[in-house]
Amino acid sequence: MRLLCVVFSMFASVVVMADKPIAIVIHGGAGTIERSQLSGEQETSIRADLSQALEVGYAALDDGQDAMDAVVAAIMVLENSTHFNAGKGAVYTREKSHELDASIMRGSDLQAGAVAGIKYTKNPILAAKAVMLNSPHVMLAGRGADAFSKTQNLEQVDNSYFDTEARLEAWRKVDEITQQKGRQEAAISDVLDHEFKFGTVGAVAIDQNGHIVAGTSTGGMTYKAWGRIGDSPVIGAGTYADDRSCGISATGHGEYFIRYAVAHDICARVLYQDKSLQQAADEVINETLKAVGGDGGIIGMDAQGKPVMIFNTAGMYRGFKTKEETYVAIYGDEK
Amino acid sequence: MRLLCVVFSMFASVVVMADKPIAIVIHGGAGTIERSQLSGEQETSIRADLSQALEVGYAALDDGQDAMDAVVAAIMVLENSTHFNAGKGAVYTREKSHELDASIMRGSDLQAGAVAGIKYTKNPILAAKAVMLNSPHVMLAGRGADAFSKTQNLEQVDNSYFDTEARLEAWRKVDEITQQKGRQEAAISDVLDHEFKFGTVGAVAIDQNGHIVAGTSTGGMTYKAWGRIGDSPVIGAGTYADDRSCGISATGHGEYFIRYAVAHDICARVLYQDKSLQQAADEVINETLKAVGGDGGIIGMDAQGKPVMIFNTAGMYRGFKTKEETYVAIYGDEK
Repeated sequence: MRLLCVVFSMFASVVVMADKPIAIVIHGGAGTIERSQLSGEQETSIRADLSQALEVGYAALDDGQDAMDAVVAAIMVLENSTHFNAGKGAVYTREKSHELDASIMRGSDLQAGAVAGIKYTKNPILAAKAVMLNSPHVMLAGRGADAFSKTQNLEQVDNSYFDTEARLEAWRKVDEITQQKGRQEAAISDVLDHEFKFGTVGAVAIDQNGHIVAGTSTGGMTYKAWGRIGDSPVIGAGTYADDRSCGISATGHGEYFIRYAVAHDICARVLYQDKSLQQAADEVINETLKAVGGDGGIIGMDAQGKPVMIFNTAGMYRGFKTKEETYVAIYGDEK
Repeated sequence: MRLLCVVFSMFASVVVMADKPIAIVIHGGAGTIERSQLSGEQETSIRADLSQALEVGYAALDDGQDAMDAVVAAIMVLENSTHFNAGKGAVYTREKSHELDASIMRGSDLQAGAVAGIKYTKNPILAAKAVMLNSPHVMLAGRGADAFSKTQNLEQVDNSYFDTEARLEAWRKVDEITQQKGRQEAAISDVLDHEFKFGTVGAVAIDQNGHIVAGTSTGGMTYKAWGRIGDSPVIGAGTYADDRSCGISATGHGEYFIRYAVAHDICARVLYQDKSLQQAADEVINETLKAVGGDGGIIGMDAQGKPVMIFNTAGMYRGFKTKEETYVAIYGDEK
């Protein structure tokens, strides 16, 4: 009888596992991405990097690893790619250096970690994960975050590691405008909003146990004022995960995403209003934010393993992979 | 006919204004505040400071000023008092200096501003307000925030201005424990949680136009690691305001308040579940947070001008003032 129970329990467990969908969804930033801006070669390379992030993340899930492993693996691919404003390829601050932000959240127990303004950690998402797992804090900023990262045996690099010619060119363009016109900060921000696409990367995954993890990583805003913190490292704004509702990673004009607590608000609408993730995200991104000029988008995963990708900009680097389908896209009019 | 319309419209306006309640609610931190810890003299002085903050804030509202003015005025009184962990009287970081955080949010248009880790602004709440009104950003941290504050003609002080003997004594106590036992950071945090009360100040007000503003200011956690950001400067965690639902200022173990997006979550329950602010706050503080050991509390104001004060700790420095009533309390068992 005891053996029978064990066998039955193993069988039940296998059935349950087979029923649970695994899936991952990623983004590489939203903004005014138009076909005229990218060469065929660039586009192919960007799509390849998005695909690789999906493959690496999905493989981790398929291999029985948890959503945390999958999200970190996918984000590291995007951080290591120069195409996205995170890790290698991060934009330049006004002082022509790089300050990176990242956050991660686990939906099973609402544990979270975030770093803001770190300068020497090759993969900021690993520092966010370390804050979550190995510190009593949720958010560390600046030199303290760098010092903590060093104690975690995470690969440290010189700040120049993050340099790329394309981002330097963007910095020069804004600097020239600024020097010429002597604009005030608010005006500079207007320039940034319209001339430079937002860059952030993120991933949300659900594993075989139905646990959702969301993560976000960014180099911030070109020519940003020293010490500006955007939404990416703010739990509830750029990142949120709760197994009961959904996981969200956002990208866009960070100030709006903080004020509207976008990631948490979408999960709250799912949890409290019984809305689908698709509807909740659509309301927040295409109604609430759009009405006030808050450009950007989100990727999300609901508790049933259904990925969503919503943005109110011309395009968003994005993709998802489920058992049935792999999808990668850039422009708003794709499929 | 035209004159009649003007007269009628003036009359209607007066009627509407007379109907709208004005009110302010404040806190000076929650924690293990017990009668045995405070001398009669200390208690009298603390109650006097809380009363003064209420009087100053309410007078602003009664004078026709907006909720922003009232909240800033009340918080400045609390920042200038040595009894509370904000402004003068802020706790010491591990490096024995002071790093202050503050945030403010306006419920009429969800504009917000926050500073984290500033060291030289006498009243951090003024820096948060300046970020909101005079910068394109929502959140500035560290040296950048200090640099911005200087450009705003806000009173700058030497970091030693914030020194007090009582806070230095608390630092010495934690330092001694740390040196003796060589505890890891997590263990230090355990000590802090149990031996030192949390300190934060906050205010939420509703003005004659029905607009709600919430603000929070803190010196953080005694012996905090350099760069640790708690919930006070995080919009959605320590502070949130939305005229449609409520305004919230939180105090407590910040990491929990970030992970549970406490301020935004309470407003979301009011807005999406049609719950009273009292019920929504009670659920989040006394059910959700209490279940996971998240010590602390909130003050809040609903859209009808009803103040609430909820905490799961032994006490919370708190008070409110409406047209009908002025209330000040410290311990959990008062009235």
